[in-house]
Amino acid sequence: MTGTPTTLADVRALDASDSLARFRGQFALPEGVVYLDGNSLGALPRSAPSRIAAVVENEWGQSLIRSWNDHDWIGAPARIGDKIASLMGVKAGEVIAADSTSVNLFKLLGALVRLSPGRSDIVTETGNFPTDLHVAEGLADLFGKRLVAVATEALPDAIGTNTAALVLSHVHYRSAYRHDMKAMTARARDAGARVIWDLSHSIGAVPLDLYADGAELAIGCGYKYLNGGPGAPAFLYVAHHLQAEMVSPIRGWMGHAAPFEFKDEYTPAQGIERFLAGTPPILGLAGLEAGVDIMLAADQQALFGKAQRMFALFAALMAERCPEFRLASPSSAAERGSHISFAHPEARVIMNALIARGVIGDFRAPDVVRFGLTPLYLRYEDVWDAVDALAAIMASGAWRSPEYARLGRVT
Amino acid sequence: MTGTPTTLADVRALDASDSLARFRGQFALPEGVVYLDGNSLGALPRSAPSRIAAVVENEWGQSLIRSWNDHDWIGAPARIGDKIASLMGVKAGEVIAADSTSVNLFKLLGALVRLSPGRSDIVTETGNFPTDLHVAEGLADLFGKRLVAVATEALPDAIGTNTAALVLSHVHYRSAYRHDMKAMTARARDAGARVIWDLSHSIGAVPLDLYADGAELAIGCGYKYLNGGPGAPAFLYVAHHLQAEMVSPIRGWMGHAAPFEFKDEYTPAQGIERFLAGTPPILGLAGLEAGVDIMLAADQQALFGKAQRMFALFAALMAERCPEFRLASPSSAAERGSHISFAHPEARVIMNALIARGVIGDFRAPDVVRFGLTPLYLRYEDVWDAVDALAAIMASGAWRSPEYARLGRVT
Repeated sequence: MTGTPTTLADVRALDASDSLARFRGQFALPEGVVYLDGNSLGALPRSAPSRIAAVVENEWGQSLIRSWNDHDWIGAPARIGDKIASLMGVKAGEVIAADSTSVNLFKLLGALVRLSPGRSDIVTETGNFPTDLHVAEGLADLFGKRLVAVATEALPDAIGTNTAALVLSHVHYRSAYRHDMKAMTARARDAGARVIWDLSHSIGAVPLDLYADGAELAIGCGYKYLNGGPGAPAFLYVAHHLQAEMVSPIRGWMGHAAPFEFKDEYTPAQGIERFLAGTPPILGLAGLEAGVDIMLAADQQALFGKAQRMFALFAALMAERCPEFRLASPSSAAERGSHISFAHPEARVIMNALIARGVIGDFRAPDVVRFGLTPLYLRYEDVWDAVDALAAIMASGAWRSPEYARLGRVT
Repeated sequence: MTGTPTTLADVRALDASDSLARFRGQFALPEGVVYLDGNSLGALPRSAPSRIAAVVENEWGQSLIRSWNDHDWIGAPARIGDKIASLMGVKAGEVIAADSTSVNLFKLLGALVRLSPGRSDIVTETGNFPTDLHVAEGLADLFGKRLVAVATEALPDAIGTNTAALVLSHVHYRSAYRHDMKAMTARARDAGARVIWDLSHSIGAVPLDLYADGAELAIGCGYKYLNGGPGAPAFLYVAHHLQAEMVSPIRGWMGHAAPFEFKDEYTPAQGIERFLAGTPPILGLAGLEAGVDIMLAADQQALFGKAQRMFALFAALMAERCPEFRLASPSSAAERGSHISFAHPEARVIMNALIARGVIGDFRAPDVVRFGLTPLYLRYEDVWDAVDALAAIMASGAWRSPEYARLGRVT
């Protein structure tokens, strides 16, 4: 893209030549909606309803308990984990789909801090996604460790010989700021420490190569860019060379080496399965697999390229038409993920007004409107329409209607 | 029932006068199958496919992120928890649907042991369901406690001033032995200790009245007698008077007092929601709610009455026709749940042969064939047919066919 398109015709020309345009038809998007919240809940793959229905009606309904074998329910966490692994640049057997991001962080962090009992600190960022902060704080409390939360720029200096573990979001949920994974992992390694990377806002959003970056541990979310469905199972990654020495603090039966021998004694499974806990959530896994399968068919570099162009278009149109909003995301593509945020003191009410007009982004406290850029199913024209609607709301003052102040949305 | 029916006509007469017979039609059962494994995976409610499809296609697909508000996804764990509460004899606001049984045990046990820091022991039974043993052992290890696992009959003497917590299965997964909840809870209370009751094999299977029994803490499974679907979310119960002092060791964002204010500081929710961790698994919750709604319509005393009669029929027919099997469940209804087990040295191979003939029970190591009695959708005639098939296999020696020895089923 040379220069910023300034007319709708320009924008439509971009869509006409978009190599990813064919993916949009694979999602069921509602009429009359511009959906810019796929970083909070990804859209429904058209393949998902029939796949989930087959699991419900045929596998659960007809094969019943036999499906653990006959439809490989028992293998689903590892099978889907292997697919996610290929999106992260790591190997089969290093990722497993299970539980929630929160629980997975607890498991990995609990296992990790036990590897360095002499070190006192769990290091993270202030303003990190709350569950990461809360889980880390709770775990620090359990283990008699100290949670050290510092501003992003203070992180390098906070890492030292007392650091037992770091918990960092690769892409920040509000600003879209993206860490230099390789540099930060190396900085930690120099201090003898390891990072657990939260990939919730980067898997399926930015190209990942955790091997090249030296990253050994990660967690992430299934229901954002992976389009796995509401509350989809999350995933976790443990590099092969660390698996034998890390034991989950939650020793559930599915992490046992031989769960169906029903032994009193706990022997963790050899591989990544040791990080399973309870019985796998089969309906949620079916939704997740449908989403992941589409993502596997898309070129991650092409996706991020399109996301960058959408970001540039969004930022330029906002600067031109809604100058009262301040860009709250990094301007450099190397330093961000795949969403765009703007600050405005009345962000909450404005977002309510925008959603009422069918343009769905979200509000993030205290003052941010946030828009997910999901190139699999969004068009450049959606960005145009979103800014157009926002500009109209601002120009008319429609957002000041009392109904929008009253709306208390939870997400 | 006076005496044991000895002819198929007698058995059919029982079905003809069964007040619960109308429920069978509410389940989608495969043709040609006698399903006696509903205590491992409950059958599919006929209402479930359309309810799940509505969540997938309408709520996820069309309303997208707005469903957290508009379809009360955010309230689902507490709403379904309230329904389960009414099956347990406890109040709304005391139960929540979340995570797996394993993770829920970890949360409650972690919170409980912190209430009595001066006590060293977590007490449980040898041969308890493995995940309970493993989770308790892992937690004891984390907290520097001692796991004391003793035989059932030694439990009263193992409880003392060192007891920080007990973890007991109300109904045993293999034998169906049922604890006297009231007596054991009182025994623990006398020693200043509390019991976490695992209700996985009793919720929806035996009438429960946790208030009357003085029980304050419990966990349980959604996919067995509640018919919530494979890997359905589990539940946990914390009596109101304990909620304020118990804090989950896994401080996920959904347990926060105000998750959508995105605060760095953790403040647990006031009520049972404090035991949530990650984002609720919406597809799994939809399946669970479909199952729970049917269970709510059934009289729990009537269900257990029918289960007792099925048990008596099963035991009598086996004694007559398959005397080489030893009854491995308590003969007294007051001491058991809703399944029946028999021991035989070749149990694994025999169960494989039986399943191949469409009679589905399961094998539990080392030597038990186990049959779930689920009066919502089973007929007395199913018991007759099961014993008939087993007797035929034993009489003909068909179970000795090498194919059954080779089958390695995981569940």
